[in-house]
Amino acid sequence: MRTIRNIQEMLNCSKKAHLQRKTIGFVPTMGALHEGHLTLIRQARKENDICIVSIFVNPVQFGLKEDFKQYPRPIKNDLNLCRKQGVDFIFLPKTNQMYPEGFKTFVTVEELSNQLCGKFRSGHFRGVTTVVLKLFNILQPDIVYFGAKDIQQAIIIKKMVKDLNVPVKIKIMPIIRQHNGLALSSRNLYLSKEERKDALVLSQALGAARNLINTGVKDTQKILSLMRRLINTKRTAKIDYISIVDSDTLKSIKVVVDNCLIVLAVWIGKTRLIDNAEVSFPQFYV
Amino acid sequence: MRTIRNIQEMLNCSKKAHLQRKTIGFVPTMGALHEGHLTLIRQARKENDICIVSIFVNPVQFGLKEDFKQYPRPIKNDLNLCRKQGVDFIFLPKTNQMYPEGFKTFVTVEELSNQLCGKFRSGHFRGVTTVVLKLFNILQPDIVYFGAKDIQQAIIIKKMVKDLNVPVKIKIMPIIRQHNGLALSSRNLYLSKEERKDALVLSQALGAARNLINTGVKDTQKILSLMRRLINTKRTAKIDYISIVDSDTLKSIKVVVDNCLIVLAVWIGKTRLIDNAEVSFPQFYV
Repeated sequence: MRTIRNIQEMLNCSKKAHLQRKTIGFVPTMGALHEGHLTLIRQARKENDICIVSIFVNPVQFGLKEDFKQYPRPIKNDLNLCRKQGVDFIFLPKTNQMYPEGFKTFVTVEELSNQLCGKFRSGHFRGVTTVVLKLFNILQPDIVYFGAKDIQQAIIIKKMVKDLNVPVKIKIMPIIRQHNGLALSSRNLYLSKEERKDALVLSQALGAARNLINTGVKDTQKILSLMRRLINTKRTAKIDYISIVDSDTLKSIKVVVDNCLIVLAVWIGKTRLIDNAEVSFPQFYV
Repeated sequence: MRTIRNIQEMLNCSKKAHLQRKTIGFVPTMGALHEGHLTLIRQARKENDICIVSIFVNPVQFGLKEDFKQYPRPIKNDLNLCRKQGVDFIFLPKTNQMYPEGFKTFVTVEELSNQLCGKFRSGHFRGVTTVVLKLFNILQPDIVYFGAKDIQQAIIIKKMVKDLNVPVKIKIMPIIRQHNGLALSSRNLYLSKEERKDALVLSQALGAARNLINTGVKDTQKILSLMRRLINTKRTAKIDYISIVDSDTLKSIKVVVDNCLIVLAVWIGKTRLIDNAEVSFPQFYV
């Protein structure tokens, strides 16, 4: 495994790979790797000649009052995990190389970026699409892997790739959960013992929604109201949003349809967690 | 010469060329080709294995009240000119392929895009950077050629390429002028006989500025005031802006320095023309 910090060096490696007719699978991450990331890496490994992982905590996607500084950076452990998975290249750029003084260019996917998490994290998705497009230009991947936990992010990136004719394929892989249902997230590290228990309410609320839908309920207000009640029983929980949305437009819908998404963002203490489930008829499972 | 209308077909051709280790020179145009464009094409032809010209009147860079509909589209003549120059591929996409329903993604270079022409043509440069990035993704060029007449456009695209790590080289080629000094532009076709005469005042004003600077005047206000007086003698002329700016930031400067730009936009009747000159000490020539 080779660690690359220089942008031009990374680009040269990618170009060389393509000239050798090798395909590149890419997993962009902010580090603090968990089994969710590792699943993406294994898939990239399996489907491509070369597997590249980037680790970059992207300042541009954090709001001023958000957790950029305290975001976990267990870099040694991350490198070990990648090595074990047979990653070929780790791209580890410095912030001032990615955003040199005078940086001014941003990519925006309108409408999709202002909904759900976008309403609560102004500028967040603009930061995501900008850094992701930069990484695509530097790494020239054939297939890029994203986890479904950040489903809005994945949908927005798919839309950007389509609109800007970026020649890459986006694969969205299923959410990986603990046995108790908690969706894996680097931010779970922030949770206290009590909060860890309360955090289970996210997947439990999705499970309750599933049960209701499986009994034939399609009125999204009924489903959301049940979820809200459930979450509000937890002392440390505070809802940012719960919504049932169309999976293309991310707009709220009134009646559950096949392939719609149940999405939620809930603060557990000082940690903001997100989770979601895709509805697939006739029955679906969280 | 092969004419390609389909995006995927164009991308396949570009990828094939790279696998054959051929370099691609690219000249993006809106058609209505003149000697300015042909100079770019000859340069692209000379410096690369493959020369691609795109002709696409990009709706997204026109304001609602601007000349998108009447913009000249002499496509047969354009194709003939390209054939004569030995162009390999003409990329001629349809509007609804480039901007299918639901298109939502835009690239913005902040600050640079709001100055000079950006103040008078809101959203124009966002339309330019968006379509240019799309074309770069579809054509995968090594070197891309722009004319210095649209100097703000060229500077903004250079900045976008740098900020987003787009792996292309941008070359800016000198303005091509008629013998009487008029900078070549597809929009010159709009001018009546009287307006054609009045339009000479743009390059004449730049010439007057040159003479003044060559006599040692460095106070930009003095220079601009002379230019303004000259232009205002023409019945059909109406100034949008005249400015002397830093060539990196495009911000007005008070004292002329080496490599600064004198830029102007002037309406001649109902036609908006732009022109510019780069100051290079000790003497410079328009």
